[in-house]
Amino acid sequence: MSATIARKRISESTIHRLSLYYRTLSLLEKENYETVSSKELAKREKLTPAQVRKDLSFFGSFGTRGLGYNVNELKLKIESILGIDREWRVALIGVGNIGSALVSYKEFARQGFHIIKLFDNDQRKIGSNHKGIVVSDIKDLEKEVKEANISMVILAVPATVSQYIVDDVVKAGVTAILNFAPVNLRVPPFVHLRNENMSMELEYLSFAMVNNHAPKKPK
Amino acid sequence: MSATIARKRISESTIHRLSLYYRTLSLLEKENYETVSSKELAKREKLTPAQVRKDLSFFGSFGTRGLGYNVNELKLKIESILGIDREWRVALIGVGNIGSALVSYKEFARQGFHIIKLFDNDQRKIGSNHKGIVVSDIKDLEKEVKEANISMVILAVPATVSQYIVDDVVKAGVTAILNFAPVNLRVPPFVHLRNENMSMELEYLSFAMVNNHAPKKPK
Repeated sequence: MSATIARKRISESTIHRLSLYYRTLSLLEKENYETVSSKELAKREKLTPAQVRKDLSFFGSFGTRGLGYNVNELKLKIESILGIDREWRVALIGVGNIGSALVSYKEFARQGFHIIKLFDNDQRKIGSNHKGIVVSDIKDLEKEVKEANISMVILAVPATVSQYIVDDVVKAGVTAILNFAPVNLRVPPFVHLRNENMSMELEYLSFAMVNNHAPKKPK
Repeated sequence: MSATIARKRISESTIHRLSLYYRTLSLLEKENYETVSSKELAKREKLTPAQVRKDLSFFGSFGTRGLGYNVNELKLKIESILGIDREWRVALIGVGNIGSALVSYKEFARQGFHIIKLFDNDQRKIGSNHKGIVVSDIKDLEKEVKEANISMVILAVPATVSQYIVDDVVKAGVTAILNFAPVNLRVPPFVHLRNENMSMELEYLSFAMVNNHAPKKPK
């Protein structure tokens, strides 16, 4: 079983659907399912069976007619494709409201993302302890990120300073960044940057309500 | 200027791009831009100019050759399409780590989403004050949601109880729900449900790193 896939651009929504399949397969495993049909997976995700089959065949997984997919095998395969079959060392910058909440967010560690370093520029926060991690001075970012072998950074800093800080993160050699500030940050082409903007999902809801956008019907 | 658009399904990614255009237009307005070209908008969003023109023409906005789009006009139009040209009354259920952080998340109010009610089932939290809002007992959900004329609910409760609580939210007549629990909730077809799963963005990053997925190049 190999995670090596074609280097062509796979759409964002396909990757997100893999994350969803992964969660459903974990649940099915707990419920002692050995196999699952594309129809059942589709029902649980509110997708069409054709979409499920297309996504999975793209990654070289084919169900057996009448039996469907082997739950454990498919779960391990997606785990490997998503890169969550390993442990990731993550630093979080900005121990404010959102940052503090993220330190306690158990889902991260469950998926293999371990926040092991915290940084802030506030003297009142530096040296304080959050869930067993002592907050470091942002000034020591480059040195500590390298020493701790950090490969991902979560940025939970105010929008006004986020570009300066992301520049420092890039200088420190980090190439994967999840940004919570509601701004478009500039990073070099070799850096992976994702934005988490929680109000955008509310905007999707207001759009839907204002435009009478029919919600997806569970099938 | 009307927000009425065809009732056909508009893709999730188009709506998210509208949210991004909106933010960029607000910024351009602050920078005193009167007009903006599709090329400039595309550059800021890391999209192609063709994609920008396609998205905007879909909503009946056409730039003027050589001048581009009027920044203020386009911003107001998107505001109206997204339904953020009004104030939304929002209740938040679950005043734990994530919930408490969301109460302080300023971006919500900036976009017109006002958290005016908090609910929890923990006796130690009920009656306590968060940013001026007193936490209500979840038992009074239906009554208080109706009295306060709430139209959206943010759900920040543990995954294990989220289905029971979403059932109560639906019973209380709310038809727009943003769920932070990492589970697929069942809701009737007339309810708009969106999921915010913060670890899915990290999975996108791990996918990208493991598969040498080329990041989008800023143009």
